[in-house]
Amino acid sequence: MDVNVDITLNNETDHYYVAIDLGSNSFHMLIVRENRGLIEVVDRVKDMVQIARGLKNGVLSEEAQNRALECLQCFNERIQEIPAEHIKAVGTKALRAASNGPEFLYQAEKALGVPIQLVSGYEEARLVYVGVSNNISQDHQKRLVIDIGGASTEFIVGQDYSPRLLESLSIGCVTFTEKYLTNAKGELDITPKTLNNVYIAASEELEGIRSIYRNEGWDITYGASGTMKSVTEIMPIMTPAGIISREGVNELYRQLGENKEIKIDNVTKQRRFVMPAGIAILKAILDQLDIEELHVSDAALKEGLIHETIGRLKHHDIRDETVTKHIAKYHVDRSQAERVKHIALSLFQQLQPACVDGINCTSVLGWSALLHEIGLTISHSGYHHHGRYILENSDLAGFNRYEQYLLATLVGMHRRKINQNRIEALNPAHRDAILSMAICLRLATVLNRKRDDLEFPPSITWTDKTITLTFETQWLENNPLTQRSLTQEAEYLSRIGIALNYY
Amino acid sequence: MDVNVDITLNNETDHYYVAIDLGSNSFHMLIVRENRGLIEVVDRVKDMVQIARGLKNGVLSEEAQNRALECLQCFNERIQEIPAEHIKAVGTKALRAASNGPEFLYQAEKALGVPIQLVSGYEEARLVYVGVSNNISQDHQKRLVIDIGGASTEFIVGQDYSPRLLESLSIGCVTFTEKYLTNAKGELDITPKTLNNVYIAASEELEGIRSIYRNEGWDITYGASGTMKSVTEIMPIMTPAGIISREGVNELYRQLGENKEIKIDNVTKQRRFVMPAGIAILKAILDQLDIEELHVSDAALKEGLIHETIGRLKHHDIRDETVTKHIAKYHVDRSQAERVKHIALSLFQQLQPACVDGINCTSVLGWSALLHEIGLTISHSGYHHHGRYILENSDLAGFNRYEQYLLATLVGMHRRKINQNRIEALNPAHRDAILSMAICLRLATVLNRKRDDLEFPPSITWTDKTITLTFETQWLENNPLTQRSLTQEAEYLSRIGIALNYY
Repeated sequence: MDVNVDITLNNETDHYYVAIDLGSNSFHMLIVRENRGLIEVVDRVKDMVQIARGLKNGVLSEEAQNRALECLQCFNERIQEIPAEHIKAVGTKALRAASNGPEFLYQAEKALGVPIQLVSGYEEARLVYVGVSNNISQDHQKRLVIDIGGASTEFIVGQDYSPRLLESLSIGCVTFTEKYLTNAKGELDITPKTLNNVYIAASEELEGIRSIYRNEGWDITYGASGTMKSVTEIMPIMTPAGIISREGVNELYRQLGENKEIKIDNVTKQRRFVMPAGIAILKAILDQLDIEELHVSDAALKEGLIHETIGRLKHHDIRDETVTKHIAKYHVDRSQAERVKHIALSLFQQLQPACVDGINCTSVLGWSALLHEIGLTISHSGYHHHGRYILENSDLAGFNRYEQYLLATLVGMHRRKINQNRIEALNPAHRDAILSMAICLRLATVLNRKRDDLEFPPSITWTDKTITLTFETQWLENNPLTQRSLTQEAEYLSRIGIALNYY
Repeated sequence: MDVNVDITLNNETDHYYVAIDLGSNSFHMLIVRENRGLIEVVDRVKDMVQIARGLKNGVLSEEAQNRALECLQCFNERIQEIPAEHIKAVGTKALRAASNGPEFLYQAEKALGVPIQLVSGYEEARLVYVGVSNNISQDHQKRLVIDIGGASTEFIVGQDYSPRLLESLSIGCVTFTEKYLTNAKGELDITPKTLNNVYIAASEELEGIRSIYRNEGWDITYGASGTMKSVTEIMPIMTPAGIISREGVNELYRQLGENKEIKIDNVTKQRRFVMPAGIAILKAILDQLDIEELHVSDAALKEGLIHETIGRLKHHDIRDETVTKHIAKYHVDRSQAERVKHIALSLFQQLQPACVDGINCTSVLGWSALLHEIGLTISHSGYHHHGRYILENSDLAGFNRYEQYLLATLVGMHRRKINQNRIEALNPAHRDAILSMAICLRLATVLNRKRDDLEFPPSITWTDKTITLTFETQWLENNPLTQRSLTQEAEYLSRIGIALNYY
């Protein structure tokens, strides 16, 4: 590990926050203390585990897994005293891509002692932007932020705290080293030709975003990540501290190709292994996006995580914003959505089901109620399926992949047949809670079919396999259509072994 | 058949147009002549085949199929002399819903001698609106048009020629008669209770659209379909000709329930069979949508078809409008879409593949090029899949279901892996043409990745299993990234047994 500062946590542990980034090249842990609104870094730990290096045919090798678990156990030691809700750990590209990712994740969570959330490439890009944006002054300049990782590279154009374009491309310094710069024996094989293969592969990926980004334009470029930091340290041409020039990168690339000795003594062995790919990738980026110089930022994904964790605990939740944006984008009837949310939550609170680790069920149910009609944008027929499809496949800022899956599941299940397979695919420990959420959303939809405020919502009980709704006297008699819809709903629920009674 | 006028077609057959509506209750044929811009009805033929009546457990009975085929053979006799592109035949709900629909359709096309297109409920509603709108003066009043069919009922609110709300609900006078008003022996069983079951079932379906339609509002209500016409003829209360009053419908409904003799001598036996359900459905509609009176329109789906066929032949194609609307709705980059369309069509014209019966391949390829990036609205990653999903599930005005399937297939196949199953699912006679279209779209996308105008598009040849692109001298050398993308494309094509060469 690079840094190894011993910290003694005092009684004020509730002011400590931890972000852990299980990147494809390095694992990072950042510990900060919030002190009267200021965030002070207490500790940074980094380990170049290079799990992407162990990714053969989409499978994480045992060796890589062991390296990773060992690192996580060390992390675990440091965070014992910090409250769980102050710790966020995320996994990115290599863990998303690995076919044995789920099993590894299970081991990893045990080693680390806290849940690890997989995030999408879009979310990864967004967190990098949040991290960088909170680390530089808000000068209203349009900025491009680039993060070259082990298995993916993120490109974000934004202004102040608002990202406008976000992309995560399959360009990685570890994956490209393995693919283009390693011989059969696993040794580095650096020639002008092999380097050019990296350059061309990266350029090709970039072609997909080049003109969109160039058309959007930006004033200043920031680079976040170890590759960038190491490159500044070996710039062969004099540039101001923390700045990478295109000229310098071109020179490095040329020297590498000619097999000239490059002064990389002060970087680690693991870093030295991925530096050539990093340099060829960087050259491709600077050429394709026509960038002359790049400012190296100290912050990245983990800093973004810290800012969001603190924000969330103080009720600034980016996920609320995301839901609001999607309501607007897809022209959802907000009043009806709010009505359904209100009733769904009122039923859910009466049921008081067991909680799901690391998931705030009330929030997830509320969001799914707000978004339950989102699929109407495609077509009325089967709109619950369209809603599920949109939510499953959209870039949802702030949501991790499991939350996104839950949201999509609930929306897809809010009417008509209940898909048993989808429930059985859930973590068994979560099934009851999620089924409760689904049923509360379904009942709320049935009760609000009139799209009028419901004056007297029923009370609900759920014992064993029987749900009972109790209405005000005469209410059901006065609302025969709702009664009929409940008959239909009882039929759907009976197919999954649940009886629905109502009086 | 109701009407049986013998017509002699003179030499000017190219001015004759035919619309055939294979409805769930009746089959209709309308023959018109266009005479200096005026459309004159030459013949109307109607046969209450009631195919929905033969629909048991989602299977069309042999009896119903035979009735239908016999009717289509008669239709066929009448249209021998009329050019095929002037004849449009569409099938609706019962044929969409039947699991043996495809086999029956094959027989039906043979009997009728022209292709039959299945249309979605949305498209059915739109055609009804087109038919009614062209039949009444355009008074700028907002109108609600209702068409009670054998297996579905359409509700459209619009103004002049523009529909605003379109819905097709699963309410049908044939299907509801079978479900609620028939005893085990297949005889009618009319009691206040059974009638009320129809009323409640229809009301429940209506609940889903009630508040949306009421909020939209309208000035005048039109009813199209046989049920409406028959009801005006037996109105027990004096109303102006062609008007149905709510009071009158309530009275009919009451009399029916009391098993009183209703004067329905002047309607056919088949109509008498479905009238009770029709009246209960009509009562539910008038009550739920709070309608006091309803004007009966003579025109409906088949008249809409005629107007569209004539319009299309004169280059007013509603499908162009639909594509333009979707480009706007999903914020597609129109310039890039036009570039890809231009190159795709230029390649396709060089290939001159065999045609697909009843499909204008050039138009379909052009539309798919215009829409190929539509999935970006959901997310960049896998956007060709999102595009396919959107196109498969959207309400696309003017497109029949096969065209919609082709559009979705081409967009879903425009990049990355080519899904063999999707090609094999196609009609074998269409496969070559559609594969050519798909490959032209793919190549056009590759060639336009720079999102700049392509000054020198290549020429293309396709012999046996080899496609050859020939570029201007030096062009490929000057565009190494395109060259690389073509290498990648050659790899994808090789997996379906096609070699791609380029010089």
